[in-house]
Amino acid sequence: MRASEIRALFAVASRPEVVSLAGGMPYLEGLPLDVIGEMAQRVIATRGTTALQYGSGQGDETLREQILEVMRLERIEAHPDDVVVTTGSQQALDLVTRLFINPGDVVVAEAPSYVGALGVFRAYQADVVHVPLDQDGLVPEALEDALTALAREGRRVKFLYTVPNFHNPAGVSLSAARRPQILEIARRHGVLVLEDNPYGLLGFEGEPLPALRSLDEDGVIYLGSFSKTFAPGYRVGWAVAPHAIREKLVLASESAILCPSNASQLAISAYLATCDWRGQIKAFRELYRERRDAMVGALAEHLPRATWTVPDGGFYTWVRLPEGLDAKAMLPRAVTARVAYVPGTAFYADGQGSDHMRLSFCFPTPERIREGVRRLAGVISSESELVDLFGVAPGDGGTSIESPSPDLA
Amino acid sequence: MRASEIRALFAVASRPEVVSLAGGMPYLEGLPLDVIGEMAQRVIATRGTTALQYGSGQGDETLREQILEVMRLERIEAHPDDVVVTTGSQQALDLVTRLFINPGDVVVAEAPSYVGALGVFRAYQADVVHVPLDQDGLVPEALEDALTALAREGRRVKFLYTVPNFHNPAGVSLSAARRPQILEIARRHGVLVLEDNPYGLLGFEGEPLPALRSLDEDGVIYLGSFSKTFAPGYRVGWAVAPHAIREKLVLASESAILCPSNASQLAISAYLATCDWRGQIKAFRELYRERRDAMVGALAEHLPRATWTVPDGGFYTWVRLPEGLDAKAMLPRAVTARVAYVPGTAFYADGQGSDHMRLSFCFPTPERIREGVRRLAGVISSESELVDLFGVAPGDGGTSIESPSPDLA
Repeated sequence: MRASEIRALFAVASRPEVVSLAGGMPYLEGLPLDVIGEMAQRVIATRGTTALQYGSGQGDETLREQILEVMRLERIEAHPDDVVVTTGSQQALDLVTRLFINPGDVVVAEAPSYVGALGVFRAYQADVVHVPLDQDGLVPEALEDALTALAREGRRVKFLYTVPNFHNPAGVSLSAARRPQILEIARRHGVLVLEDNPYGLLGFEGEPLPALRSLDEDGVIYLGSFSKTFAPGYRVGWAVAPHAIREKLVLASESAILCPSNASQLAISAYLATCDWRGQIKAFRELYRERRDAMVGALAEHLPRATWTVPDGGFYTWVRLPEGLDAKAMLPRAVTARVAYVPGTAFYADGQGSDHMRLSFCFPTPERIREGVRRLAGVISSESELVDLFGVAPGDGGTSIESPSPDLA
Repeated sequence: MRASEIRALFAVASRPEVVSLAGGMPYLEGLPLDVIGEMAQRVIATRGTTALQYGSGQGDETLREQILEVMRLERIEAHPDDVVVTTGSQQALDLVTRLFINPGDVVVAEAPSYVGALGVFRAYQADVVHVPLDQDGLVPEALEDALTALAREGRRVKFLYTVPNFHNPAGVSLSAARRPQILEIARRHGVLVLEDNPYGLLGFEGEPLPALRSLDEDGVIYLGSFSKTFAPGYRVGWAVAPHAIREKLVLASESAILCPSNASQLAISAYLATCDWRGQIKAFRELYRERRDAMVGALAEHLPRATWTVPDGGFYTWVRLPEGLDAKAMLPRAVTARVAYVPGTAFYADGQGSDHMRLSFCFPTPERIREGVRRLAGVISSESELVDLFGVAPGDGGTSIESPSPDLA
């Protein structure tokens, strides 16, 4: 399957009769739309000549101060000058990669890793070296071995890309114990850490873990986003970076877009100033926990021969299919059966992952999630019969997904 | 002067006591902010789960249809599928350059050319070859000669970058007679044309000239923007490109930002659907014509030894200083005298332009424009005395402006 075919498939999958367990779209119906609408009105009526004008390339200063408040929940201490506001954290990912990567440079990333990051690394011709994760996130010993081997080969490793919390797609988190270990290994090998953290505040139990950036100011570039804790439609994310890198990020961002949207920034700034954003995040956590429960409950009921991660937060579970099944080859049949997912191959730079799929529980209601898993179970059951008969299900030997469509965010 | 010093200088220049003839910020006080605020409220209250959600990487389909209406004023006929919505047209410029340029490839551009475009070309390590313009825009014979010489040298020319209407910074427009000639020359040399047209609808007399894209569908990538005809704060621009290029632009944009802001797109879409946007453009035209008149009137009165272009639209006039003056060296003294401009060197890739300055008449009131020119005349007069005494004014031999700060848009 080529990228264009996968796109066509996702176009079908966006029809209302299909249960999509594919997308990373947050569920927005719980937001106080009336209040947000009135705020938007007030921002333009009272500060319109600022909201509708060009702004600072680095981002609105008040918003950058408010971002510090948000990050304090994960124990990050920073200065407003350290923050660069971007068009979603995807743009920050693009800018960091643009700054650091020359063709052939190595990026180390978890196996599996976020499809949108892999797309950016590919666009700048980085070589991605995957390092395994387990239930406690990235495995320190495996990272040590990989960096040592790369050093021995004389390969130039520019950064470690990691999603420490409620990993996309794996659903696991880097344990508190491993955080300083990972940082120590990276520091010793002279490798910068790119910490991508859209889901950190969406944990289902207990307090957020301290961000890697809270443990290491100089060796970490941190990426944050309002897309999952508030709303993606404004396209507002940010980077926190050591001084010299931050200056270059601002220049690169000005070259790419001149400045982030003042209208978006001022709307978010007003939301943070006047709404109970902490209460909204709590509401989202409860909503997504209920959906996670629906997802893992349905998996246990309907997919006895598969295994999956049980995430403590975020949007995704990572499912290993019964022996012999190929998630990508099976996708057209799943869509025909009115259920969609993202095949595991999307999350590797090297064609691995055909035995996995990412299921997201963020957008559909619990009932639709259960219905989706039931449909999926039917498809898997038919596929398994074919495997039992012929030893292997008909695959297509195609390429992996080539682009981070917004459907896959 | 280094980029950081110029930034510091522009920070001073943004103080209220300084008359800034430097920026390209549109004048927004004439916009019906109450109406726009209410529209923003309505969009979120009634379509909030769309406005605040991820959207299509290519852009909202309704907005793309409305963009066709806008472009019809310059005789462009296209299909909504041909349009890619971007985070300002600056992002489109970045994406096109990213797609086409390998280090060392040649971009042909007017002499002078838009500082933000030169920043992008530099970021991708293009070699910019400047071709002269005159009162009627880019000179066809000079383009023919340049492309012939480059072909003879075996240099790979990827595209011609041109601002055909109310040129930034030169203030001139490509004449109707030259438009087909330029296209014919580009076609014959196999060079794509990148038509950047933020100001085309802001002409002070008569009807808009037909866009280059209206004369050649296959050889032109067209860039449009709402930043000057409505408001830059939403960061909404667009590209129209031949099919194969358009598909690649969408993939590149998804890699860079996932998707443009739905909140911004739906706000602009509502504005186009419910407000008299043609009337607003007419009001802007009259406003800017009055300011242009104030600018050229003051120049004639106070700067008898300089020469300048008299623009028929847009935001800028291009001033040639009296013999021996250096616009960049003079800038700190001008800012001290509470007037700011952009030195001509910013608009060349090769260090030319120290004898020119760009003056913008878009943002300050006519009275402030006249005051600014008076102050400028004082500075020029003191500099000229130094030249008369010593033969040359004290310069600094510094580099040109390295980045397209939003101040210079």
